[in-house]
Amino acid sequence: MAKNKPPIVITMGDPCGIGGEITLKSWHYLQARPGRKTPLLVLDDPQRLQKLSSLLGFTTPFKIIHSPDEAQAEFFNILPLSRPVPLALGQPSPDNAPMIIEAIDRAVQYCLNGRARAMVTNPIAKNILMSAGFAFAGHTEYLAELTGDTQPMMLLINPKMAVLPLTIHISLNQVAGRISKELLISQISHLHGELQKKYPHLAQKPLCLLGLNPHAGESGKLGSEELQEMIPAVQHLRQMHIDISDPTPADTAFSPENLRKYGVFIGCYHDQVLTPIKMLDMHRTVNVTLGLKIIRTSPDHGTAFGIAPHFTANPSSMLAAIKMAEKSVNK
Amino acid sequence: MAKNKPPIVITMGDPCGIGGEITLKSWHYLQARPGRKTPLLVLDDPQRLQKLSSLLGFTTPFKIIHSPDEAQAEFFNILPLSRPVPLALGQPSPDNAPMIIEAIDRAVQYCLNGRARAMVTNPIAKNILMSAGFAFAGHTEYLAELTGDTQPMMLLINPKMAVLPLTIHISLNQVAGRISKELLISQISHLHGELQKKYPHLAQKPLCLLGLNPHAGESGKLGSEELQEMIPAVQHLRQMHIDISDPTPADTAFSPENLRKYGVFIGCYHDQVLTPIKMLDMHRTVNVTLGLKIIRTSPDHGTAFGIAPHFTANPSSMLAAIKMAEKSVNK
Repeated sequence: MAKNKPPIVITMGDPCGIGGEITLKSWHYLQARPGRKTPLLVLDDPQRLQKLSSLLGFTTPFKIIHSPDEAQAEFFNILPLSRPVPLALGQPSPDNAPMIIEAIDRAVQYCLNGRARAMVTNPIAKNILMSAGFAFAGHTEYLAELTGDTQPMMLLINPKMAVLPLTIHISLNQVAGRISKELLISQISHLHGELQKKYPHLAQKPLCLLGLNPHAGESGKLGSEELQEMIPAVQHLRQMHIDISDPTPADTAFSPENLRKYGVFIGCYHDQVLTPIKMLDMHRTVNVTLGLKIIRTSPDHGTAFGIAPHFTANPSSMLAAIKMAEKSVNK
Repeated sequence: MAKNKPPIVITMGDPCGIGGEITLKSWHYLQARPGRKTPLLVLDDPQRLQKLSSLLGFTTPFKIIHSPDEAQAEFFNILPLSRPVPLALGQPSPDNAPMIIEAIDRAVQYCLNGRARAMVTNPIAKNILMSAGFAFAGHTEYLAELTGDTQPMMLLINPKMAVLPLTIHISLNQVAGRISKELLISQISHLHGELQKKYPHLAQKPLCLLGLNPHAGESGKLGSEELQEMIPAVQHLRQMHIDISDPTPADTAFSPENLRKYGVFIGCYHDQVLTPIKMLDMHRTVNVTLGLKIIRTSPDHGTAFGIAPHFTANPSSMLAAIKMAEKSVNK
């Protein structure tokens, strides 16, 4: 028998949210397409997913396996977690925290030792995990801890654009103080290397750097960071043969011409780039963590506890996350 | 003879930019539409505009008049400035500053004394005026000085949405310090009153207030301004019977559902709201100054000195500014 391709491993996420639903919906959608070959492997409780599949009206060819190597593309492969997890949609509980975390831990292990090609994470709820003692700000920080990487970066991508925020979950009044020449050189050169390795189609186009201040500082009249930190960083990056724009006023940066021209828009803060990308195509926006030894993507939305009992979740972002994991070059 | 309707007065703007071109193009476009009745009156040099009209290939029925009351809807009415202005597209000069300013001054006077219904300003270049001693940050500040108003506000509007930034041309590191309960109550109640008076169609819908911080501060974890300043302001505004949202995460605020639901999106800083509105429909975005005794609109772009000699300017924003001036309720 020919050796199976290493699977894409999908974590359970918070079992009280929409994770199981969007995973099942995505699997059925993908199965109906010809030509796909990478097996999907879900780390979850088989009973839980079987019940959920029935409730969703699916007939799903489940295969319960005990090693990633057994995953086959024509099955919905489940690798059981060490303890059962109840189906309690919309009723999050800290009791689920150990299995939520186990799924992440095992997915990372499989990616690190090459038994999985990439991982896709289902949404988790930070406050649920924190109440069970989880000490990380989110998935990204926890994954970096597990892989031993020190500079994870959040790339968001959809069919229309890709963006990278240089700072993420900090208050707005802390942003300007973080925008230094050193940070820009370090993150943007790291981004560039990661794109060349994992997303070569994005690396072929120039990068657009957004100014921190309105009008990109208007020659220093509306803020000094562009002149003192950002332009020197750009000059340095160009010496490293990185094709990057001058600091560009954010309000006019996302024109149709620029969306065609640039590979990634680099913003100084969360809302500067997350707002435009979500406006353009919220449902197909995917979160890709760069700067890890492994490939990790995830849908760009939360657990949606409120709608989980109603089975109305839109799987587009999960579907896009799986496709992106498949598209990523893992070498 | 029936008394003419008070005209909409249009300033020259910087004569080396695209102002004359977009004004002529707009006039011809509007003239071709049935039913429009408000005369347009342009404060400029007649010879300059006549030459420009020929270069653009237009046959324009100019009427040179000496009082706004003489303006008639079927003519391109010009009220000459006190000195000639050369046609020197793309070659800005401080020599033009006195006539650029005179056009603004006279337009304000006509609006204040009721001889004009509203004014539309063509783009100016701050650095050109400043080198001639002009001491204001822009049109808005200068108009407030002329009308004696102390709280002008910049509303941007296009067919898809309307936005108001609570702070405008300041560096990002100054923004958080300005977002106080007092500022929000004062500006938003002022906005609400102005909408009811001048733009009743926008006043019928609730206002959406965007959080300052990512995720609108996430219950204080990513910044304190929402809890300490913004929510108390919202509670106070609701007691004043103003229908306004809680501080809303900016990145997901501009969904199609919210664009239908809300009248005006109120942002804490320039790029937070100018980026989304320009993305959605840059060419038809209009700048409306609220908080003045007069009605003033303008196209939402600059002088475009670089393209002025090529006659390729897109008049959509000027056209929308004229229509918005016509739509404004002036009482």
